Amino acid sequence: MKTILVVGIGTGNPEHLTVQGINALRRAQVLFIPDKGAEKSELAKVRRDICERYLENPRIVEYTVPRRNTAAEYGQGVADWHSALREIFSKLLAEHVTDGGTCAFLVWGDPGLYDSTLRIIDPLRAKGEFAVEVVPGITSIQALTAAHGIALNRIGEPVQITTGRRLGEAGLAADSVVMLDGQTAFTEVDPELEIFWGAYLGTPDQITIAGRVGDVAQSILQARQAARLQHGWIMDIYLLRHREP
Amino acid sequence: MKTILVVGIGTGNPEHLTVQGINALRRAQVLFIPDKGAEKSELAKVRRDICERYLENPRIVEYTVPRRNTAAEYGQGVADWHSALREIFSKLLAEHVTDGGTCAFLVWGDPGLYDSTLRIIDPLRAKGEFAVEVVPGITSIQALTAAHGIALNRIGEPVQITTGRRLGEAGLAADSVVMLDGQTAFTEVDPELEIFWGAYLGTPDQITIAGRVGDVAQSILQARQAARLQHGWIMDIYLLRHREP
Repeated sequence: MKTILVVGIGTGNPEHLTVQGINALRRAQVLFIPDKGAEKSELAKVRRDICERYLENPRIVEYTVPRRNTAAEYGQGVADWHSALREIFSKLLAEHVTDGGTCAFLVWGDPGLYDSTLRIIDPLRAKGEFAVEVVPGITSIQALTAAHGIALNRIGEPVQITTGRRLGEAGLAADSVVMLDGQTAFTEVDPELEIFWGAYLGTPDQITIAGRVGDVAQSILQARQAARLQHGWIMDIYLLRHREP
Repeated sequence: MKTILVVGIGTGNPEHLTVQGINALRRAQVLFIPDKGAEKSELAKVRRDICERYLENPRIVEYTVPRRNTAAEYGQGVADWHSALREIFSKLLAEHVTDGGTCAFLVWGDPGLYDSTLRIIDPLRAKGEFAVEVVPGITSIQALTAAHGIALNRIGEPVQITTGRRLGEAGLAADSVVMLDGQTAFTEVDPELEIFWGAYLGTPDQITIAGRVGDVAQSILQARQAARLQHGWIMDIYLLRHREP
């Protein structure tokens, strides 16, 4: 039996690593790091830096992540993309992990939140070929609230975690933290809401803007566009909140 | 100006500490740890263990947390409780932190999630007397999904974070992670939902149960009751999820 460690590494600050995460990486004979193409090479670099900071002579294997077919229907596009990645993972595990050996996948943020790694390896685990251990990591939600020095929730109130796509379709059901919003859906919400926005959270390039949506939405759009041009990519997230009465 | 570090320490596993968290604790001249009475002395012990594991000769000051008046209207009860804690914090800061000095509050989980520390110190920060830095920590949500080896969200779907009190009042609006549920509201939901339950997550006493609500709700009630008797206290959390089609 081989062991797969799925390790959350936080959002770009190497100090987001937990002691549990560092110990997990040290147990692994090989570390798998995704290569998502030139525009995200900074992210691959952060992962390599983490390995080199905490491990002696880490064995790192990078794999190319195929592009998701965004022309297909959403669910089908995701399913096909997972299948393609599952084949790549199977090959990596066969080629680089010895019997009884241990490997680690480094996952941005936390493996439980809008990440596909667990879903991709689930069928492999179900066949009984692999043991899987998950190590939690700091998410961009936590990096966001820490950067703004705020609580995610109002006292005793619920919070929704959702995506830009969902927010655009369904509107705001409750105070919401919005991830993966390439469509800048925050420009379409009630201008009286409060927004707490952040990009590149936890990294030296971190940017934060907060205020009434009606007052700051344009500044966020501009900051977002400028940063995207400068870096070639952007990862951002925001909390939309009703004001405290 | 004095600096207050509000440091998330995870859910009871000393290895949940991040490198950033350890470095923050090392910067502090004094560490403030709540004492919530005999039944939660295990939790205070975990905090002391963390200090002693990562720090040389830490200076620890424990403070007694007053009880919240649960007979009062909820909002008023919380507001009064925060005021009482704010007075205690002001005293601690005046007595134990030198001018220009740095102290740390150790917070269970993450300071941004159902924790009052930031709200209590906000008026002190607003007066300009203190700088506040927040260090994110692993939450029980992440410890829960890691223990079950699952993702929090279904593909592209939103997730709500809510409380047992809210679930009891408002019912289930979406897949929900439920915290602070002393009323075991999960016994009242649609029995066809899936539940992923966990208690003492991240500690050696961790218990997990998962399945269809109709099948496992009784086992969870029993496990909960037995563990509560044994430990004198319980901290548990669960995810309620619609089944994947």
